[in-house]
Amino acid sequence: MPTFDGFPHVMVSQQFSRQWIVEEFFPLVDQMKHIFVSGGCDMLKGKRMVSFFYQPSTRTRMSFEFAIGYLGGNVLFSTENAREFSSGAKGESLKDTILVINRYRPDVIVLRYDRELGSEVVSGISRVPVINAGDRNPGQHPTQGLLDLNTIKKHFGHIDGLTVTMVGDLKNGRTVRSLSYLLGKFGRISINFVSPPNLAMKSDVKEYLFKHGVEVEEFTDLRRVAPASDVIYQTRTQTECGSTMNGKDGYFRIDQTILDMLNTDTIIMHPLPKLDEIASEVDDDSRAVYLTDQIDSGLFTRMALLKMILAPKR
Amino acid sequence: MPTFDGFPHVMVSQQFSRQWIVEEFFPLVDQMKHIFVSGGCDMLKGKRMVSFFYQPSTRTRMSFEFAIGYLGGNVLFSTENAREFSSGAKGESLKDTILVINRYRPDVIVLRYDRELGSEVVSGISRVPVINAGDRNPGQHPTQGLLDLNTIKKHFGHIDGLTVTMVGDLKNGRTVRSLSYLLGKFGRISINFVSPPNLAMKSDVKEYLFKHGVEVEEFTDLRRVAPASDVIYQTRTQTECGSTMNGKDGYFRIDQTILDMLNTDTIIMHPLPKLDEIASEVDDDSRAVYLTDQIDSGLFTRMALLKMILAPKR
Amino acid sequence: MPTFDGFPHVMVSQQFSRQWIVEEFFPLVDQMKHIFVSGGCDMLKGKRMVSFFYQPSTRTRMSFEFAIGYLGGNVLFSTENAREFSSGAKGESLKDTILVINRYRPDVIVLRYDRELGSEVVSGISRVPVINAGDRNPGQHPTQGLLDLNTIKKHFGHIDGLTVTMVGDLKNGRTVRSLSYLLGKFGRISINFVSPPNLAMKSDVKEYLFKHGVEVEEFTDLRRVAPASDVIYQTRTQTECGSTMNGKDGYFRIDQTILDMLNTDTIIMHPLPKLDEIASEVDDDSRAVYLTDQIDSGLFTRMALLKMILAPKR
Repeated sequence: MPTFDGFPHVMVSQQFSRQWIVEEFFPLVDQMKHIFVSGGCDMLKGKRMVSFFYQPSTRTRMSFEFAIGYLGGNVLFSTENAREFSSGAKGESLKDTILVINRYRPDVIVLRYDRELGSEVVSGISRVPVINAGDRNPGQHPTQGLLDLNTIKKHFGHIDGLTVTMVGDLKNGRTVRSLSYLLGKFGRISINFVSPPNLAMKSDVKEYLFKHGVEVEEFTDLRRVAPASDVIYQTRTQTECGSTMNGKDGYFRIDQTILDMLNTDTIIMHPLPKLDEIASEVDDDSRAVYLTDQIDSGLFTRMALLKMILAPKR
Repeated sequence: MPTFDGFPHVMVSQQFSRQWIVEEFFPLVDQMKHIFVSGGCDMLKGKRMVSFFYQPSTRTRMSFEFAIGYLGGNVLFSTENAREFSSGAKGESLKDTILVINRYRPDVIVLRYDRELGSEVVSGISRVPVINAGDRNPGQHPTQGLLDLNTIKKHFGHIDGLTVTMVGDLKNGRTVRSLSYLLGKFGRISINFVSPPNLAMKSDVKEYLFKHGVEVEEFTDLRRVAPASDVIYQTRTQTECGSTMNGKDGYFRIDQTILDMLNTDTIIMHPLPKLDEIASEVDDDSRAVYLTDQIDSGLFTRMALLKMILAPKR
Repeated sequence: MPTFDGFPHVMVSQQFSRQWIVEEFFPLVDQMKHIFVSGGCDMLKGKRMVSFFYQPSTRTRMSFEFAIGYLGGNVLFSTENAREFSSGAKGESLKDTILVINRYRPDVIVLRYDRELGSEVVSGISRVPVINAGDRNPGQHPTQGLLDLNTIKKHFGHIDGLTVTMVGDLKNGRTVRSLSYLLGKFGRISINFVSPPNLAMKSDVKEYLFKHGVEVEEFTDLRRVAPASDVIYQTRTQTECGSTMNGKDGYFRIDQTILDMLNTDTIIMHPLPKLDEIASEVDDDSRAVYLTDQIDSGLFTRMALLKMILAPKR
């Protein structure tokens, strides 16, 4: 697996090469699906995972804990309120926490952090692999990026040449950032960013995409670009981050009007949980994959990553 | 097992028939006791349970997690703050949550919900069996109803012909509702509802009992009916629901005065946790079963339900 | 194992004799290290632990859950918010809670309590062994005391004759209390208590040490005693308890100035989590053991206690 600072951490989308994604990751995800469908395996028997969440995320934690479960490993310790209710609340540094967890020698640490992760964990501190399960400011969510990419690949059979439209609060959403970095690895990609001006995608991502030859355009009305999109990636209103976009506004919301514009082959994605940025009638449209393929891809992606980290040679 | 909308969900007390209760449920609970006493078994090996609590309930969650543990199954994911700390807090619909959990294919979902459960889960959404571990407005707690019924059966050897007195905040208490619906399945039952007028049992339950031939009377002083009761079922003051009954008031509280009135064969029940609606001297009275038989019955009842849902043919 | 009121509870440091500590505990901790290094064992297979925390403590809970995990046992139920989010919030007595947990017949209960533990659990109520994982007012943390003692023993090869300096909020810190009671079992011990006058060690501990022949002196400036100390035990500022000591104050803080005074053989301990009462440069000093030996000792100590309680004859 592509390492991060010499260790098999999963920190940021950028660490994964196109070659690894296409030749190793996508095929392994398919294998994981077969293991899941057949009811699980013992591949990671005896392996010990720690779920250490400074910010609660039922969905992500559940996905990881099921992933290790289907591979026969164990969650030896799990907390979802590390910041509010535990050593985090007492102001301890993340470095100390990581060092302490390391002494117990788990096989992998799944870490959701409510600030920016990075140098603290990165600089040779953790000898136990750490998977970034979402960080902040604005942060990344690299396993979400990989599962999103795999969802697209599963539908179209390829990534090159696709037009992906990302909608909503792009400034604060970490999932669109992680997905953008991954799309930049592929060829002839067009990305449309659709958001209110005050919630536009940050320049670091746009610069990265420009350097990687991705065609980027920005819009303030989804209807302008919906018909020409292969993928519509709607994002959640980040109320925690004080975003003020009106989800009901026709410019950014997916409803019947948008559905009527889309190609039959387009897919509609969302990282969940969703509020009213997607009208309820969209759920039943066969092009909506956020309650089906995207969830499955999340489980299989985490299984694949855990397999690569914990049993790399098998 | 009696299904709910064609699926083996446990949703409401009404779904269980007298025949099933007497011929299948009671005997299976006895079997479960033997398994417990012998230290557990592997009957549900490889089965995966999700504990998904929107409202914390240490006692109920512990009872279910021990139940699957004694049968050899696993809790693959557990959360007790789904509303406050996770996707629930972001306003996501229960339907989305249930659909997502379904994708992971657990074998059973134990769900505590802080609003009314029902059509959202019921209408063919969950293909994974869901056990209602308590809902609201005013809600039910069907596994508590079954464990209460089994506690009574264990003591008297039968249900028919008994006089059951329920005391306290009957308006908001879901356990007395679930037990009432179950008692309505039996013959020659008398129920006394003892509560302040503003916390009286709601009319839906009373109408149900009337239709099922149960003799119902309402009182505002426990001392009036204590001597003629086979079962005194005290309830917890629902402070969360803003009930204002004074638990210390002699009219609704169980203390030495009430103990002195009771038959030697009467049992005193309570769903726990209890506050001062039961005086501490009652704990040591042999007729009090809330810290003994009722707890045991809770574990065996949940074991029996999990066995029926997860290994119906064994 | 030394019992408490006839049961193998771990309640207070005083219950352990010098003979047991030296002849049984220390050697068993060494055995546990070997089990850990070899990847764990199945010694406690089928044993069931309950983690019941009224007050969150990520570190202590993780240490216990890893300890039972490395010995092959299971955590059947775990909660870290028993007070705020569960039956505790409803005001139920600890006695009721302990009685209920007992009915499920776990093999051991690890209990963190936010008030004073003691007679409620002690007086013959729990037939399941209870391990005090920290209580209050001012409370004890006996497993921390044992792990601290073992850390010292590992470094010096003995306890007799050492000079131990405890620094900081000694009034509210339960770890220094538990360690003091243990040191009192040994010979020719000198203890220096260094704290602001308003946060001085309470008289009960000082009287105990006087009776046991420990030489005790009190100071208000760490620099006075640092050079002559074998152990510097820094404590955490107890913000929860309203302590007002200024951690940055040179009198009680460990920084380069203090490091320069210490013998090469002195060790620096801290129960963690730490804030700024220890300067960050101290972390990298080889005499600091709080992120290394002390953490390891915590895991091995809990493994040893669980082994003695759950598999005493093996």
